[in-house]
Amino acid sequence: MRPKVSIIMGSSSDLPVMEAAAKLLNEFRIPFEINALSAHRTPEEVESFARSAYDRGVRVIIAGAGMAAHLPGVIAAMTAIPVIGVPVKSSLEGLDALLSIVQMPTGIPVATVAINGAGNAAILAAQILSISDKELYNRLVEYKEKLKDKVIKANDDLSNIKYEFKV
Amino acid sequence: MRPKVSIIMGSSSDLPVMEAAAKLLNEFRIPFEINALSAHRTPEEVESFARSAYDRGVRVIIAGAGMAAHLPGVIAAMTAIPVIGVPVKSSLEGLDALLSIVQMPTGIPVATVAINGAGNAAILAAQILSISDKELYNRLVEYKEKLKDKVIKANDDLSNIKYEFKV
Amino acid sequence: MRPKVSIIMGSSSDLPVMEAAAKLLNEFRIPFEINALSAHRTPEEVESFARSAYDRGVRVIIAGAGMAAHLPGVIAAMTAIPVIGVPVKSSLEGLDALLSIVQMPTGIPVATVAINGAGNAAILAAQILSISDKELYNRLVEYKEKLKDKVIKANDDLSNIKYEFKV
Amino acid sequence: MRPKVSIIMGSSSDLPVMEAAAKLLNEFRIPFEINALSAHRTPEEVESFARSAYDRGVRVIIAGAGMAAHLPGVIAAMTAIPVIGVPVKSSLEGLDALLSIVQMPTGIPVATVAINGAGNAAILAAQILSISDKELYNRLVEYKEKLKDKVIKANDDLSNIKYEFKV
Amino acid sequence: MRPKVSIIMGSSSDLPVMEAAAKLLNEFRIPFEINALSAHRTPEEVESFARSAYDRGVRVIIAGAGMAAHLPGVIAAMTAIPVIGVPVKSSLEGLDALLSIVQMPTGIPVATVAINGAGNAAILAAQILSISDKELYNRLVEYKEKLKDKVIKANDDLSNIKYEFKV
Amino acid sequence: MRPKVSIIMGSSSDLPVMEAAAKLLNEFRIPFEINALSAHRTPEEVESFARSAYDRGVRVIIAGAGMAAHLPGVIAAMTAIPVIGVPVKSSLEGLDALLSIVQMPTGIPVATVAINGAGNAAILAAQILSISDKELYNRLVEYKEKLKDKVIKANDDLSNIKYEFKV
Amino acid sequence: MRPKVSIIMGSSSDLPVMEAAAKLLNEFRIPFEINALSAHRTPEEVESFARSAYDRGVRVIIAGAGMAAHLPGVIAAMTAIPVIGVPVKSSLEGLDALLSIVQMPTGIPVATVAINGAGNAAILAAQILSISDKELYNRLVEYKEKLKDKVIKANDDLSNIKYEFKV
Amino acid sequence: MRPKVSIIMGSSSDLPVMEAAAKLLNEFRIPFEINALSAHRTPEEVESFARSAYDRGVRVIIAGAGMAAHLPGVIAAMTAIPVIGVPVKSSLEGLDALLSIVQMPTGIPVATVAINGAGNAAILAAQILSISDKELYNRLVEYKEKLKDKVIKANDDLSNIKYEFKV
Repeated sequence: MRPKVSIIMGSSSDLPVMEAAAKLLNEFRIPFEINALSAHRTPEEVESFARSAYDRGVRVIIAGAGMAAHLPGVIAAMTAIPVIGVPVKSSLEGLDALLSIVQMPTGIPVATVAINGAGNAAILAAQILSISDKELYNRLVEYKEKLKDKVIKANDDLSNIKYEFKV
Repeated sequence: MRPKVSIIMGSSSDLPVMEAAAKLLNEFRIPFEINALSAHRTPEEVESFARSAYDRGVRVIIAGAGMAAHLPGVIAAMTAIPVIGVPVKSSLEGLDALLSIVQMPTGIPVATVAINGAGNAAILAAQILSISDKELYNRLVEYKEKLKDKVIKANDDLSNIKYEFKV
Repeated sequence: MRPKVSIIMGSSSDLPVMEAAAKLLNEFRIPFEINALSAHRTPEEVESFARSAYDRGVRVIIAGAGMAAHLPGVIAAMTAIPVIGVPVKSSLEGLDALLSIVQMPTGIPVATVAINGAGNAAILAAQILSISDKELYNRLVEYKEKLKDKVIKANDDLSNIKYEFKV
Repeated sequence: MRPKVSIIMGSSSDLPVMEAAAKLLNEFRIPFEINALSAHRTPEEVESFARSAYDRGVRVIIAGAGMAAHLPGVIAAMTAIPVIGVPVKSSLEGLDALLSIVQMPTGIPVATVAINGAGNAAILAAQILSISDKELYNRLVEYKEKLKDKVIKANDDLSNIKYEFKV
Repeated sequence: MRPKVSIIMGSSSDLPVMEAAAKLLNEFRIPFEINALSAHRTPEEVESFARSAYDRGVRVIIAGAGMAAHLPGVIAAMTAIPVIGVPVKSSLEGLDALLSIVQMPTGIPVATVAINGAGNAAILAAQILSISDKELYNRLVEYKEKLKDKVIKANDDLSNIKYEFKV
Repeated sequence: MRPKVSIIMGSSSDLPVMEAAAKLLNEFRIPFEINALSAHRTPEEVESFARSAYDRGVRVIIAGAGMAAHLPGVIAAMTAIPVIGVPVKSSLEGLDALLSIVQMPTGIPVATVAINGAGNAAILAAQILSISDKELYNRLVEYKEKLKDKVIKANDDLSNIKYEFKV
Repeated sequence: MRPKVSIIMGSSSDLPVMEAAAKLLNEFRIPFEINALSAHRTPEEVESFARSAYDRGVRVIIAGAGMAAHLPGVIAAMTAIPVIGVPVKSSLEGLDALLSIVQMPTGIPVATVAINGAGNAAILAAQILSISDKELYNRLVEYKEKLKDKVIKANDDLSNIKYEFKV
Repeated sequence: MRPKVSIIMGSSSDLPVMEAAAKLLNEFRIPFEINALSAHRTPEEVESFARSAYDRGVRVIIAGAGMAAHLPGVIAAMTAIPVIGVPVKSSLEGLDALLSIVQMPTGIPVATVAINGAGNAAILAAQILSISDKELYNRLVEYKEKLKDKVIKANDDLSNIKYEFKV
């Protein structure tokens, strides 16, 4: 099955952060591919990756990078596919990566999520794909229900602790 | 024609920033609606806005807000439609709005663009809609070509100035 | 006994920070309840929590959350009870949570305390309740006296160390 | 009529920011007093102000200051009345005042509102007084309704503009 | 005469900042060229610019850009010529541009100067060229002497003012 | 009369900020000198300035500079006279100057005052000189009294405004 | 022997940072005292400490505190003795303490040193005392010489490592 | 062989960061020297180091320092050789060192690299030397090829992991 989402990261050392995206895409049963290519060390590979993505069937790109994180913006410059940027924390609490990804000039947006927010990047990718896929949309609604149930369940557990504190 | 994109802002005072999104959606010939509703002052209106959006045909929401900018996240909590967040600068150089929008917890992503980046929010919305609309995809490719031509034209103009400086 | 203060946090993982509030409310013998409900994952539960609070006898709400911390502001939007916000540190040294809580727009204030300052949130809640409860006011004055005595006692202990350093 | 709220600011130059609090307290028909006393230039006056406040009938103090804004914390150290702190922007975009006010140590909370958020300080003061004043509580609920109506009215006005943009 | 230094900026709107570099290169009598090409809007043009630079005789590149300033890093990825990065201030006081330029990953350095420091970029370019050009080195030493003389002259002028202040 | 305090600034363009120090030293009747010498453009002049200061009778040095403000630290490295550093705001809201001045390594302190706080630098210089000059100490106590009286006077004026606001 | 320097800290938990000041004052053979008193928990004790300091023979005060660090400023408000402020790091990397100490309003300076820079506070105190104590001035010059010798010795040791690296 | 590059750091404790520069210069077969001299503790040694560098054959200086990092700027003030600055992280996440190094005033540039980016400083030094050394230029092109191959190799390894995730 051809990948619909492409996860790419600036360095294979970003994998511990970025694999959260892979896990969630699996959970949503969305076919994907993973690559680790650097905008600075392998610019040609990044270019051929970006330029071929649409024709390979990719419809959303998730790009994670740290420090002066140019990868998401560089890819967004070379394709009209929506690019989701994940700032990976490795210095300055991740603020450098966040600003390098989110502050794109007019014309070339990157859909930025939280620092180390690879999981949310996958959910956002699923939401984007779901605009023309009602079945996926329903899976997302379901996923949100499960999240909610988990919170409510944890809240119920909390009520046992409550008594200790209460007057 | 039913709107496919819904622009919403936390206050009508955000209109000077947010109208850049409206202008670009017009340019891309994408039907849209505009609202100014506050997550804090009109929570019920925001809720009914968010919950009815999918059935009203909306497929992407662009939400702009300043300061403790909760509007994009609050809407994202109530629908599975992709939400694009625009941090509107009104204090602390817009850093408060940026962090309040981008740092969402796992489960509820907001696709954040640059501070005051309403134009890019519209382009991102168009990119999202284009994943199942080849004709729109082509319009985006065209748009990017026009941007490029403008830059190249400006660069050519610069070459006249160059001579003044050159040895 | 009906709770007068309601402690709520965005996730049960915030409990290690927020339980300091519970401990101090116990010390002040103020009845309270604890909940962990997410503004983003369980918006309906948060809404019914907030809207019913006044009639359930709650007079102060302490709300803690991290990252893009919307919970305190979202609750403040749905009730006229004073809401105390506790920024919980989980990224960017807690600066994202602080700004997301404190920078509220006119009309909907959140009484913000220090990053991870759940203990102070409880003291502030007690101070608020004490404006119409002279007995509680006296307990607070007493509590401050005890704090003072502890500082003076620690200072006296320091005088033993002093001799080591002195000429 | 004895003042129930006391507005104090570090310098009379803070008046343009702080008068928003006075205006709103007037609107809520809450008697108040205003003073401009510096924690650093007039420590004795601040002390006698703080120590006499409770007996003078004051139940909430609103304290605004800029830069290394010690006034709210210094007052909070000398009374058990709730103190609301307003960071006044005069340098570093107001970040210095915000941190100097909000980051109080355990034992002495200051209820901090947004940078230059004097209006919200007044609303918070009213909310605090309303916990034992049902009539005031109702006035606050009304005030929130008016805010909401204003937003909805502005949103309706926006719909005229909408047509210009629409396809 | 073939340019030895190439000034490039992300947008022709950066010219008011970047022309300081042109003026100083003229003063040092170093032949240069100026271009305004965007890493995001004209990636191919930037690539052919960068890849041809060495063979066109360029030995130092000065690249200025604002916001998520990728241009210097993207060029540095495509050539082994030293690249000097100038963060251009257009948002967040220029902090976003500074971090996007300076925080490059190992392998691809960018020699970053101060925010809006285009003049210093030119001096640095001259210093780099001077390592194999004794005559240019002497011109730089002379330039520094002139700077020094100007400071000393201004200091002498100050001594007239001094008397007004002196006891 | 030989100067006891030496005011030095990195550039004569810092004079509008630094002259507040001169005015206050005059008020305290402390003889002083003013120089504008750059740590970077005139290192030898700064060195001879610093090394000769003690023997010229200077007992406190006030050094103001902006951006990467090295002047106060460089002088502190060359003399054992106390050096007071004034961060002059010219970029990044003065944060760069503040950190460049205050974050000195162990062994070489600089007594740092607020951003643009040249007036306070003069008062601090007077306080330092007053530790062995009882008469000057009394003038400082007097000065503080005058500050206090001015605040109390302004507060009294405020009471007229108060009536407008009061219920 | 009466103390000439008084070290005070906001909490006895600051001792691990502040004892560096005590050690260096011992090394300079300057008599000192140490106290841990909180501006917020023990305002009266701080006031009597500050008001009695001059008559007790104290000529320099070193005050360390963390978070919303008001102690140095509060003391400076109550005496004309020079006050050295040490920002103690306990949250936000110490930035809150730094700004709360250094950004004092005109009239009440605090001589601020680096975050956790208690050692430098002691050296600065010695420098201040030395302006009327030639013997102490000489000890400081000696101390600086020793620092210098240590650096030169360490640099010589480095030359052994150098060979490993050298071609 | 005379050193062409001189590595200098503010303290021998910076060696763990700075030795990355030494390793890479070895790899590029560029002769170098290492020193640890403090701008503040050993100003004369730094001066004689800087003033003699050009005549000793040094053509690029790499200077690393932390906190109020003056060393690179102080050296740049005393020579026309290009100076590369390495901000060493020891407080405030390295932001103080970064700003103290990069924000140099016009006339005296420092070529700043990333926080702790000593490796990149060495590569930049090699790039600077290579402008008149074709053989070294080729070694740099080769080095970049090797970096690229390593990334591509790591990416190929990733494809094994990919299957685990893939649908």
